[in-house]
Amino acid sequence: MITTGTQMHELVRRLYPLCRSITGDGVRRTLDIVGEHIGLTVHEVPTGTQVLDWTVPQEWNIRAAHLTHVATGRRVVDFADSSLHVVSYSVPVSATMSLAELRPHLHTLPEQPSLVPYRTSYYAPAWGFCLSQDTLEKMPDGDYEVVIDSTLTDGSLTYAEHVVPGEVSDEVLVSCHVCHPSLANDNLAGVAVATALAAELAERRPHHTYRFLFAPGTIGSITWLARNAERIDRVRHGLVLACAGDRGALTYKQSRRGDAGIDRVLRHVLRASGRPHSVVEFSPYGYDERQFCSPGFNLGVGSLTRTPYAGYPEYHTSADNPDFVSAEAMEDTLAVCREAFSVLDRDRRYVNLSPYGEPQLGRRGLYDSLGGRSEAGRVTATGGGGRGDGRAQLAMLWVLNLSDGEHSLLDIAERSALPFDAVADAARALQGAGLLKE
Amino acid sequence: MITTGTQMHELVRRLYPLCRSITGDGVRRTLDIVGEHIGLTVHEVPTGTQVLDWTVPQEWNIRAAHLTHVATGRRVVDFADSSLHVVSYSVPVSATMSLAELRPHLHTLPEQPSLVPYRTSYYAPAWGFCLSQDTLEKMPDGDYEVVIDSTLTDGSLTYAEHVVPGEVSDEVLVSCHVCHPSLANDNLAGVAVATALAAELAERRPHHTYRFLFAPGTIGSITWLARNAERIDRVRHGLVLACAGDRGALTYKQSRRGDAGIDRVLRHVLRASGRPHSVVEFSPYGYDERQFCSPGFNLGVGSLTRTPYAGYPEYHTSADNPDFVSAEAMEDTLAVCREAFSVLDRDRRYVNLSPYGEPQLGRRGLYDSLGGRSEAGRVTATGGGGRGDGRAQLAMLWVLNLSDGEHSLLDIAERSALPFDAVADAARALQGAGLLKE
Amino acid sequence: MITTGTQMHELVRRLYPLCRSITGDGVRRTLDIVGEHIGLTVHEVPTGTQVLDWTVPQEWNIRAAHLTHVATGRRVVDFADSSLHVVSYSVPVSATMSLAELRPHLHTLPEQPSLVPYRTSYYAPAWGFCLSQDTLEKMPDGDYEVVIDSTLTDGSLTYAEHVVPGEVSDEVLVSCHVCHPSLANDNLAGVAVATALAAELAERRPHHTYRFLFAPGTIGSITWLARNAERIDRVRHGLVLACAGDRGALTYKQSRRGDAGIDRVLRHVLRASGRPHSVVEFSPYGYDERQFCSPGFNLGVGSLTRTPYAGYPEYHTSADNPDFVSAEAMEDTLAVCREAFSVLDRDRRYVNLSPYGEPQLGRRGLYDSLGGRSEAGRVTATGGGGRGDGRAQLAMLWVLNLSDGEHSLLDIAERSALPFDAVADAARALQGAGLLKE
Repeated sequence: MITTGTQMHELVRRLYPLCRSITGDGVRRTLDIVGEHIGLTVHEVPTGTQVLDWTVPQEWNIRAAHLTHVATGRRVVDFADSSLHVVSYSVPVSATMSLAELRPHLHTLPEQPSLVPYRTSYYAPAWGFCLSQDTLEKMPDGDYEVVIDSTLTDGSLTYAEHVVPGEVSDEVLVSCHVCHPSLANDNLAGVAVATALAAELAERRPHHTYRFLFAPGTIGSITWLARNAERIDRVRHGLVLACAGDRGALTYKQSRRGDAGIDRVLRHVLRASGRPHSVVEFSPYGYDERQFCSPGFNLGVGSLTRTPYAGYPEYHTSADNPDFVSAEAMEDTLAVCREAFSVLDRDRRYVNLSPYGEPQLGRRGLYDSLGGRSEAGRVTATGGGGRGDGRAQLAMLWVLNLSDGEHSLLDIAERSALPFDAVADAARALQGAGLLKE
Repeated sequence: MITTGTQMHELVRRLYPLCRSITGDGVRRTLDIVGEHIGLTVHEVPTGTQVLDWTVPQEWNIRAAHLTHVATGRRVVDFADSSLHVVSYSVPVSATMSLAELRPHLHTLPEQPSLVPYRTSYYAPAWGFCLSQDTLEKMPDGDYEVVIDSTLTDGSLTYAEHVVPGEVSDEVLVSCHVCHPSLANDNLAGVAVATALAAELAERRPHHTYRFLFAPGTIGSITWLARNAERIDRVRHGLVLACAGDRGALTYKQSRRGDAGIDRVLRHVLRASGRPHSVVEFSPYGYDERQFCSPGFNLGVGSLTRTPYAGYPEYHTSADNPDFVSAEAMEDTLAVCREAFSVLDRDRRYVNLSPYGEPQLGRRGLYDSLGGRSEAGRVTATGGGGRGDGRAQLAMLWVLNLSDGEHSLLDIAERSALPFDAVADAARALQGAGLLKE
Repeated sequence: MITTGTQMHELVRRLYPLCRSITGDGVRRTLDIVGEHIGLTVHEVPTGTQVLDWTVPQEWNIRAAHLTHVATGRRVVDFADSSLHVVSYSVPVSATMSLAELRPHLHTLPEQPSLVPYRTSYYAPAWGFCLSQDTLEKMPDGDYEVVIDSTLTDGSLTYAEHVVPGEVSDEVLVSCHVCHPSLANDNLAGVAVATALAAELAERRPHHTYRFLFAPGTIGSITWLARNAERIDRVRHGLVLACAGDRGALTYKQSRRGDAGIDRVLRHVLRASGRPHSVVEFSPYGYDERQFCSPGFNLGVGSLTRTPYAGYPEYHTSADNPDFVSAEAMEDTLAVCREAFSVLDRDRRYVNLSPYGEPQLGRRGLYDSLGGRSEAGRVTATGGGGRGDGRAQLAMLWVLNLSDGEHSLLDIAERSALPFDAVADAARALQGAGLLKE
């Protein structure tokens, strides 16, 4: 089972060379490899299918592409070196042309002269090469042989799902985009963390049903939404995973609602963990939260990244390679997801069955018999050890006081500033003593 | 047409010498001069008319007033020098009295010894002179001839309206008081800015109907309210203009409601403009917002000033003269009003007609075809120029995402931190593409 | 009548030596002494009575207790020196045992070696001695004669009430615990302040009915709640008084509701007073607010202390003696309670009978006739004296503006930042002029 950061990083390295796009064999090969770790249901949706306001495009595949200086025979740019070298969805080309004619088809990053940019042209027929400014500047004048051996044909769009059945049919959707070519943080790290999460969850029966979606960005999530519109109410919470492996602090971007369950859980978990982190408002750009949070759906779906979308200089360049992401960072992202889903699965509302005054905890064995010391003092003085477990007693008092049918355990954890685990443990103890019911 | 700061300043200088009060020929002469710039409907309401809890008082007029030292024949105070020299509504006097007898009728500002204060006694029969402390201290003992050649007679209270018809009958009320004698900032600057605004608005057909009210403070607005009570629901927004010409920063005082449309618009416009400014809570003292925001009416009427009511040492003294106000300050106040009314006129709610997922903007010519760059990056990189107009695209995404019937364009501008203009332009483009309807 | 800090301090000193517990003659003797100052209705509730989730325990009384070193005959610990020396509710003991056998029954504070702790064992049969660490360390090895001459027998739990009838039957509950032995701040100071408050209130007829409760902590308030459950709706506001005499700043702990009337009143009074103070959120530990604010009752009961529960090193030790509390601090606590109850008794909603525009205050003698000066300026310039009482006029404008049936006088005081007294005086003046009704 894939669990460690090292294993996730290995998966990133393996997926890295593949030339993914919004359709084609790069996505299929990616899903094959993910499928070695977790069972996947792969869906193929034919070209031309109407999906919401969009139409599934033709399928794009590419075998080779290169630019060769005719006079010297030197191949100056070769797709074999990096899948980034060709503008994604480039139409086939086989021509000879001067550098001047070629120039409008060459994309560079003049301010990052050693890096190759990532460019696409999904919905307008075009072609182009991406290369470093350094390479461009060294290209001699003269004619170039231009070859893009690609195909654009009716085929299908590919995406995959993995479902971990839960105690209830209410779903948590975990989505990551699989359409980017050789970019590690965006989004192979997200794919790797999602894969590990799915593998972990399958080991136990979670409360919610967890649905993992591996789909191309935008058109993929739109296709999934179109095909699942009538079941969409099952999705109670969701998380888009992206940029999950860089060394920056975690950033949680809230759902459009801003107060959805997932928003409250992630805010709590990040704050309670003491990690440096940011929580930002929803905005309608970024990843597939754009689609899940479109006003017609308005799902409670947030997005977890480390450094957010477009927020780092390596973004959408050849510098976003496997060395840019770390095993530790992916483990850290995984840990926060695990903790968040654990809270999501345990959060519920209880009712205090003895709501008039405090019930006598002592005779139920839930309370220290020797009085006179303050509970607050005991918390400080004894920490986790010591004679009385002050925090457990405090948590019980909070759960009893707020379990009026209005407050969930998460509400109680937030109001009491106690960790969710302490509150959930207290609820379990009180339920065991017959003082609480769901 | 009056448009420039210089022209407004010219109007202030021309109106300055007139002896205005809450009734009388000073108000009429003021309205005559304003009427040279914009068409005015002048109303005369007879003395004794019951208006809400008040009664229109007798009309006050004054021809001359002076204090003459009998022994030397020297005229120490003369109304001909400044309309401030007589307590407004002074009853007629013709007498000779000692300085000691005269003393209780003399008003000075001991802490600002060179300035003449402004004083009134509208509703209690009284008389008095206002003079500088310096003058008072030089007045020799002995008898004085005291002359106030005023009349208090049944007549009428005068106010004027100018209406700019809009596309809808919902009204925006712009009110300024015209009762103060020779005080420039309070409120000839407000009168000048209101005049320029009215002239500007009449050049186009605004969305709302704009009603400009030039009336004496308190009794004038109360009279207007009494005569318009049954039509008051037409007033959807309002702004009291005062102290519009001093060199201080703008201050917007919110309506009693605090969240009225005008409050939100002024807050947005001032903040988005980057100007130093203040926004303050409603309080039941100041100018005629006191009446418009009385609990029975509770209109959405705020007040725009530069330095607020009573907040500057020149307030209600002879130092509030035409040199105290500047053409630039009045132009600045005018610009904010213009911008605020432009937002007010364009703010409305749209509904996204393609709310499930994002609509495909590209095939509608609304989106760059070359992908891979971040929208956020483009905004920064290209500013107003460059290849893709990133801000326009961002604005479209925001408008589509929030146009669910709950959010107005102003809501969207505030949540996205985009300028209102960008949001309104995006809405127009999306409406043109059939993606949005009102 | 008990009114001064000195008198309260005298009461603390007199009550200090008594050995109170949750039942027994120490409580009865305490109530006898309080009953010398205010009339008390004493209730006795028999052992075994079911009270909510609890049962009234056996009654505990103690005559003597001591530890004597057999070899030397030296009495090393004697209950006659301090009621703290015996763990409250210790079962009777008469035995000789070695120091090693005795050791588990000896409680000290190793970090505060000169102080004797306060310990209880109400609901588990046990016995023990409390002593200083210094004493413990000097205790020679060898056998000790151990005597605790206590009784645990069926009897009753004792509490007392004092009711000051008001104009309405809605009640304000003032509660203080009377179960702690020789601890001055916790809670003899609270008892003394409550006694003085009751004595004061009985001198006039307050608006609310005030009910003072002197009861043992936890089991006492639970007993009272059990016996008054069907009348509990009468309790509209409440205050638990504890730790009322130390030299720290006042702390108001809000009710579980957080926005109950008592919460708003205490916040206002403390803030308006300019005193250093804290306002803290409700938490389900502390004093009897735990019971009053249990979810089934959820009363609007807050708690006023100086340094809060368990927040000072002298807490529950022999250092909480009469020297630890001061007459000044108790007077200060009393003053805040007095002011808070005065606001509570006067706060109500009025309706402006002339809500359209401002009513003309001048002709009703409520407003200065000489105009031209700012009200704001007058407030600053004249303070309490001067010609026009600016603050009174401001208060009238605020009361008129906000008396729309939605805002109480306290709301108006908070929004206007005027003292409650000024607002209440303005309301009385306006009501006198026929402009306002309840």
